[in-house]
Amino acid sequence: MPERFRHLLSIEPLSAAQINFVLDEAKPFQEFQRYPLKKLATLRGKSVALAFFETSTRTRISFATAAARLGADTLNLQAESSSLKKGESLLDTARTLDAMKPDCIVMRHSSSGVCEFVAKHLDIPIINAGDGSHEHPTQALLDALTLRDRLGTLEKLRVTILGDILHSRVARSNLHLLGKFGCCFTLCGPAMWLPREFESMGLPVRLTSGVDQALEGADAVIVLRVQEERLHEPALPLNEYILQYQLTPERLRRAKPGALVLHPGPMIRGLEIDPAVADGPQSCVLEQVTNGLAVRMALLFMLLGGGGESDFLRGLQVQPAPVPGKGSKHVAD
Amino acid sequence: MPERFRHLLSIEPLSAAQINFVLDEAKPFQEFQRYPLKKLATLRGKSVALAFFETSTRTRISFATAAARLGADTLNLQAESSSLKKGESLLDTARTLDAMKPDCIVMRHSSSGVCEFVAKHLDIPIINAGDGSHEHPTQALLDALTLRDRLGTLEKLRVTILGDILHSRVARSNLHLLGKFGCCFTLCGPAMWLPREFESMGLPVRLTSGVDQALEGADAVIVLRVQEERLHEPALPLNEYILQYQLTPERLRRAKPGALVLHPGPMIRGLEIDPAVADGPQSCVLEQVTNGLAVRMALLFMLLGGGGESDFLRGLQVQPAPVPGKGSKHVAD
Amino acid sequence: MPERFRHLLSIEPLSAAQINFVLDEAKPFQEFQRYPLKKLATLRGKSVALAFFETSTRTRISFATAAARLGADTLNLQAESSSLKKGESLLDTARTLDAMKPDCIVMRHSSSGVCEFVAKHLDIPIINAGDGSHEHPTQALLDALTLRDRLGTLEKLRVTILGDILHSRVARSNLHLLGKFGCCFTLCGPAMWLPREFESMGLPVRLTSGVDQALEGADAVIVLRVQEERLHEPALPLNEYILQYQLTPERLRRAKPGALVLHPGPMIRGLEIDPAVADGPQSCVLEQVTNGLAVRMALLFMLLGGGGESDFLRGLQVQPAPVPGKGSKHVAD
Repeated sequence: MPERFRHLLSIEPLSAAQINFVLDEAKPFQEFQRYPLKKLATLRGKSVALAFFETSTRTRISFATAAARLGADTLNLQAESSSLKKGESLLDTARTLDAMKPDCIVMRHSSSGVCEFVAKHLDIPIINAGDGSHEHPTQALLDALTLRDRLGTLEKLRVTILGDILHSRVARSNLHLLGKFGCCFTLCGPAMWLPREFESMGLPVRLTSGVDQALEGADAVIVLRVQEERLHEPALPLNEYILQYQLTPERLRRAKPGALVLHPGPMIRGLEIDPAVADGPQSCVLEQVTNGLAVRMALLFMLLGGGGESDFLRGLQVQPAPVPGKGSKHVAD
Repeated sequence: MPERFRHLLSIEPLSAAQINFVLDEAKPFQEFQRYPLKKLATLRGKSVALAFFETSTRTRISFATAAARLGADTLNLQAESSSLKKGESLLDTARTLDAMKPDCIVMRHSSSGVCEFVAKHLDIPIINAGDGSHEHPTQALLDALTLRDRLGTLEKLRVTILGDILHSRVARSNLHLLGKFGCCFTLCGPAMWLPREFESMGLPVRLTSGVDQALEGADAVIVLRVQEERLHEPALPLNEYILQYQLTPERLRRAKPGALVLHPGPMIRGLEIDPAVADGPQSCVLEQVTNGLAVRMALLFMLLGGGGESDFLRGLQVQPAPVPGKGSKHVAD
Repeated sequence: MPERFRHLLSIEPLSAAQINFVLDEAKPFQEFQRYPLKKLATLRGKSVALAFFETSTRTRISFATAAARLGADTLNLQAESSSLKKGESLLDTARTLDAMKPDCIVMRHSSSGVCEFVAKHLDIPIINAGDGSHEHPTQALLDALTLRDRLGTLEKLRVTILGDILHSRVARSNLHLLGKFGCCFTLCGPAMWLPREFESMGLPVRLTSGVDQALEGADAVIVLRVQEERLHEPALPLNEYILQYQLTPERLRRAKPGALVLHPGPMIRGLEIDPAVADGPQSCVLEQVTNGLAVRMALLFMLLGGGGESDFLRGLQVQPAPVPGKGSKHVAD
């Protein structure tokens, strides 16, 4: 068993063995999503704080659902109504949440590095649900689970990432993760979105603005979301982007037969992806969503489930949940 | 037993027998709201996605509470933070939710027909919680439960609907529902809100702008919410509306003695309804709210409870919830 | 045992014995926050409506978590999406919530006296979670629990309250509470925030704008949040406030050795409080947050747990939760 980790702040420091361990742990939870009754008592009595300082649909619902299916409660901090608006520092907000005694904090924030900063100051596990343009580790893990399932391995794949690489935490986390398995990468997009930093990651990375050669021989294509407002920074007309970079069935044919298409969502059909590709047999987008639940359940279980399996089980089953004061009044549940 | 339905998209296609079946199913859940402990394990392990693309207070809380009291979990999609804002198509948002494996989606949207569109593309039950000016089927069902309880029957009632008929999904759903029981209708409001389409529904519908004759002999009056901003479309001053159409105690005296007053809420006292009527003995507004819970619990139970009663029971009680992988680690709950 | 109360609308009418009873009840729940599994079945089948008409982070999460840890469900009314915006009266909103049959309503509102008004019209317990500048009773209770724990008693303390006294419901609730235990008070801030009304409360209250003498010999200092926009009412420059009123380590030395520092949060470091004080050994701010959970669990238990202990226990354990209609279909949980 590889070394356990306490937080999930980024993919970068993890070993291939640690990653494989998470993916292996996720397998039964993947199967679990097909069961007619999806409720476990595994984390009953635990609570997960969801601190989303950036709006989110799928990631937030995914973590909330993962927690609920494991039997945990959630504490929901909504960015809009947050004390940050009243001038409180982020760390004070996090410490306040922590003082409510959740068992971990899942955090999304628009600034890179914020999760790591908070983790240094608190004693409970922190899970990064996306921090600025830094990392989105659970996205990379669910992408890896999807790829490993469909292709049988993560080793030495040829992976093309298409779109706004510059701003993408998804791209960074995927590069770190797949790089540990000897994958090689082609990053493709308008030149303004292809920063040279990626060439100095110590990974076999090729940068190109030509989508045709970028797709040549790829085992998998990760299409990134294009935020229209960013196209206009150093102006590139929207229809020009579509013309040059949209993943169409014709372009996809340059990749290996059966090459997989992934997208972290939300996907804008007709912009970065042709609907025929989005809905085609090579698309994994919905599988990714379901795998997101599996990966997040596995992580919550690993980080909150306690030190040893037997300790954990004992805590849950043999010892009834301890009861405050005049014991007769309360029934442990 | 009448034919089961898979979705609840609209009242229009349902038979009177199907409607009566739902109302009968709702009766024990109505009683249930009076119990000191309101929690069942009936839908434990099931999850209900609440996808409200239009803001809502009562309907959303009602569905969430109905799900919780049946033991189900909820997945909450908030319109404000939704991916739709990022350019995702509605169908992709719905498919993403679906990939999280809820057991049904309750959906509200400002566009008519959206629920039906989504239902065609997904394999799980869809419940329409209000779509544009099309239908609001659970509102009509809770209104019917209220009327049937108080009047003993739904057959051949004289029903007056008062207010903004044009934009009202509540009016449309009530017309469809009560029309199946031989009710006859008077629709009353400013001429701009009385579209001729209602005369071609094949129902005994009379349109009038005269509130006095509209109320004459009514068994029940359904007062609709007036949205001030709509008054100003083809301008009618607010105080003119109040003067001509507000349901006052004097006007209500034209209806049958003890005629019922319903309102889907939120109600604006002093605009469409006189406080003395809203709080009077003929008013059913709070009963409607409680009946909403009963109807929604019944529907969730019917649509999610499984094919056959015995199968369902077996699933819940005899088979423990299946447990992923290394079974010893997890405890089915 | 002191007289039970039905609502918690304000501290003012409570007796010292009643307050001590709440604090005693909170002790086991304080201990409970340290347990590895924090879930009781005490209020299983009960539901708590959270009606926050004013945004809130900590208070809302604290009540929601308290309810969840007692096993209760919550009904969440969000101010932003509330029917009030559509013109519904507050009382109608409250009555609508009530018709969903929660077992109590926790309410926050920007207008003083609103909770009391609602309590007069509904039959279920109302808990005031902050109403205008009137009271914030659970804040005063958690402050008292913190003080009693650390100082061993609430009797005859010298308490300094520092900041915007005028607008502070926290100040008012604390004065009422601690006044019942013979404490004496120094209220300190800019003259515009020191209304004479506090001198007519029948309490030993001293008003001063001089922070040095205000802190002299204090057992505890309650620092209030400063809302920048209020500084500008009768203009006082922000840096002038900081210079004159910020609680610094030097100033704190004038208080008794080991004097406690409390803050209701959210705290603005560098404005009303020096970070060295906020993080220093005399600061109780995080303890206050945890104690908030304990106090709120105790209150929910007291107000919702039923008339007599044995009745309550009987309801929970001996009688299975009643089951609607055709009993065989539903499993009480």
